[in-house]
Amino acid sequence: MMKVTVWNENRHEQTNEKVQEVYPKGIHEAIADFLTKAGVDTRTATLDEPEHGLTEEVLEQTDVLVWWGHVAHHEVSDEVVRRVQQRVLAGMGLIVLHSGHFSKIFKTLMGTSCDLKWREANEKERLWVVQPNHPIADGVGEYIELEKEEMYGEHFDIPSPDELVFVSWFQGGEVFRSGCTFHRGMGKIFYFRPGHETYPTYYNKDIQQVIINAVKWAEPSNRTNPVYGNAKPLEDVPGE
Amino acid sequence: MMKVTVWNENRHEQTNEKVQEVYPKGIHEAIADFLTKAGVDTRTATLDEPEHGLTEEVLEQTDVLVWWGHVAHHEVSDEVVRRVQQRVLAGMGLIVLHSGHFSKIFKTLMGTSCDLKWREANEKERLWVVQPNHPIADGVGEYIELEKEEMYGEHFDIPSPDELVFVSWFQGGEVFRSGCTFHRGMGKIFYFRPGHETYPTYYNKDIQQVIINAVKWAEPSNRTNPVYGNAKPLEDVPGE
Amino acid sequence: MMKVTVWNENRHEQTNEKVQEVYPKGIHEAIADFLTKAGVDTRTATLDEPEHGLTEEVLEQTDVLVWWGHVAHHEVSDEVVRRVQQRVLAGMGLIVLHSGHFSKIFKTLMGTSCDLKWREANEKERLWVVQPNHPIADGVGEYIELEKEEMYGEHFDIPSPDELVFVSWFQGGEVFRSGCTFHRGMGKIFYFRPGHETYPTYYNKDIQQVIINAVKWAEPSNRTNPVYGNAKPLEDVPGE
Amino acid sequence: MMKVTVWNENRHEQTNEKVQEVYPKGIHEAIADFLTKAGVDTRTATLDEPEHGLTEEVLEQTDVLVWWGHVAHHEVSDEVVRRVQQRVLAGMGLIVLHSGHFSKIFKTLMGTSCDLKWREANEKERLWVVQPNHPIADGVGEYIELEKEEMYGEHFDIPSPDELVFVSWFQGGEVFRSGCTFHRGMGKIFYFRPGHETYPTYYNKDIQQVIINAVKWAEPSNRTNPVYGNAKPLEDVPGE
Repeated sequence: MMKVTVWNENRHEQTNEKVQEVYPKGIHEAIADFLTKAGVDTRTATLDEPEHGLTEEVLEQTDVLVWWGHVAHHEVSDEVVRRVQQRVLAGMGLIVLHSGHFSKIFKTLMGTSCDLKWREANEKERLWVVQPNHPIADGVGEYIELEKEEMYGEHFDIPSPDELVFVSWFQGGEVFRSGCTFHRGMGKIFYFRPGHETYPTYYNKDIQQVIINAVKWAEPSNRTNPVYGNAKPLEDVPGE
Repeated sequence: MMKVTVWNENRHEQTNEKVQEVYPKGIHEAIADFLTKAGVDTRTATLDEPEHGLTEEVLEQTDVLVWWGHVAHHEVSDEVVRRVQQRVLAGMGLIVLHSGHFSKIFKTLMGTSCDLKWREANEKERLWVVQPNHPIADGVGEYIELEKEEMYGEHFDIPSPDELVFVSWFQGGEVFRSGCTFHRGMGKIFYFRPGHETYPTYYNKDIQQVIINAVKWAEPSNRTNPVYGNAKPLEDVPGE
Repeated sequence: MMKVTVWNENRHEQTNEKVQEVYPKGIHEAIADFLTKAGVDTRTATLDEPEHGLTEEVLEQTDVLVWWGHVAHHEVSDEVVRRVQQRVLAGMGLIVLHSGHFSKIFKTLMGTSCDLKWREANEKERLWVVQPNHPIADGVGEYIELEKEEMYGEHFDIPSPDELVFVSWFQGGEVFRSGCTFHRGMGKIFYFRPGHETYPTYYNKDIQQVIINAVKWAEPSNRTNPVYGNAKPLEDVPGE
Repeated sequence: MMKVTVWNENRHEQTNEKVQEVYPKGIHEAIADFLTKAGVDTRTATLDEPEHGLTEEVLEQTDVLVWWGHVAHHEVSDEVVRRVQQRVLAGMGLIVLHSGHFSKIFKTLMGTSCDLKWREANEKERLWVVQPNHPIADGVGEYIELEKEEMYGEHFDIPSPDELVFVSWFQGGEVFRSGCTFHRGMGKIFYFRPGHETYPTYYNKDIQQVIINAVKWAEPSNRTNPVYGNAKPLEDVPGE
């Protein structure tokens, strides 16, 4: 059975009543909940645990890591970021949610600023499926509608995604590439836009379905990693 | 007229007689030479200059930066790497040559290990054009043949390139994605494999043509950079 | 100087007063007009001319072909479609506009149905630039706004574009990949969504700028086309 | 259980003793054999059956179609090609093998000539994995070596593949993009180079593994196909 770790900064939940109301046990537990119900072996980890809950042992036993962060990106230690990057390059899947676009780990793996436009105006978001045969869109209709969400708008400063699965429409007039796959090393990465802390987005059945699909899609393959470095020739090299 | 800076580590040239013989004025001067003859306003910069010759002023006046490094990647200061990354994201082109695959700046922009297989065995390399309508391949035949080169072999641990222009065949039995484009932020990046320091590769007319083409292709566009951050709605948002 | 042929079905212009009012000389002349002013050597061709105005001679002298069609796609002869396809594969650029998504030539080059959602409701379209460093977006702001246009909505049944330059937002709630590049053989193709016949879209300066940029981007490269078929080995093959 | 149909032209098997010796029951049976052993519900179809064995009923019950053809591409009826194309666009997977690169169905789905260089010289092929985390490469080492194969060389006139999984090295000096994915409509397509009729390539365990992986990867997703055509607005459109 695949093993998922849901990581959450878990700070808004300590300080903002609105967020406490929506996610009384924290965003991480809300996500772990529906993953567990979907038959995935799920644990959680948060910023304030030792090593942010992401020790070598935990990562070694994690097939796919889900990441939610916002106000405390800078508090994540560079050492843990490096550790997570190494694990992704070695094959661990990574699902980056919403404001995780500005996390150190996502920026490190992308190489760009990952900047974007944003606005909190309780506006409608509609996520259109633009690659309908992608496994991450399985079981989802033509679009997902969220009555109220934070707006993220283009230009989104990421490398061109390997696959573009969702594009969002916002009531205020913007669009956004809101479901993007990337592969880095042996690891598969999915960025998924929705999930502002003051809205009940992670209770939406379609949003849950996409995250469940993404976790399965990002599962590491069963293969030996490539060999790098000095290599003997496989054919005669006369000049040698 | 576009302005190019050719950066070279310039260390092998100080210590290795073979390299001195092939590139008596340094690899940077050999490259600057043919770029200048092609009508490009070219200057050079090297590791041992103050700030590695890459001050804010120099970068501000650089449209495209060409990068060659090998044994001293770790001596390049993190501050200068950050500065070059910012300039690339703001639009400066970057041409990374040969062992520059392991430079801090390339690894930072790719997010991966950029590792590969390698071998020094004086073997033949043949670079096949796989996207013949790409401007970087203009004026080049079906392939470029180099009698003796270092081998680089797959797996090359990079993100999938936006465009794959060249694939190399090596006598010893390997292949390599040897001409790859990427865009990061507003900047265009081209990685080009050939150019081991002990071979006269940068005197080869086809190799020169590719680098000249790449420099022109990577020229920044004339446009205002995107605006990021908080954004007012462009349409009425009832919920606001 | 590059040579462009603007092809137009030119049927709505004969039968619809509204269209006659907006484009009294036909959509083709409106497009040829601004291309000529931009210094491009432009001619036009229309469906009712012999061979639809696209004889071997005309195509031989065309660097980039611009295509607008809508109600009479089925009247374009298969022979001419084959001829245009061959020229694109041999290097001619092709700019497909608006309802040209359903033209025989576009469907032939894509291999898919090229179907989409549509609606005529005088609604607002906003085309966001999602790859701001692309030459086709040069000189254009963060978005292009069109007060009234026909809506095209996802899913748009095309192969994943090589580059996605524009994504449209529509007032009625849809999004659309509205500026897409593809390469096929030696030819470069750009699909650009706007331009319904009853709106003055092709008089919009930004829309004109994009089409001028696209024409320049799609110019054939100066290179010998690849050689196909039986090939002698370049290295000794012991088993031969 | 997924259902696969293996289609073979089955002509060399009737006329060429060498081929009869290698594939006494035909290439289709050799492929069906290892797919069946891998637990896939497999049937076969050949050119000389009525409607080439690809009736509406057969296609309706086919999740993934495997295609091998060579000397008789022109004998495949346009009607059947159209039918297969429709099924692919509606979600059926398609695995195109070796000389199938020149089949009507592959050329129709690609939109290009699909031409290439070739040579029969009993030479060695080595297929390198260039995207090691792709499910099609699961269980395969760094490369697959085939002692004797026909050579296919670049330039291969296809659209840029969505994913490039294998690149081949040939003894005679060429390279080839030999494992390529594409998606068209709802369907997933994989082109896989090896399999000349006079060599026992389809008995090679690694080649079998790749084809088994590809068949599983190309399985249609469980989703309703997109809706196209005229669409009511999802939001108020004042101008309507």
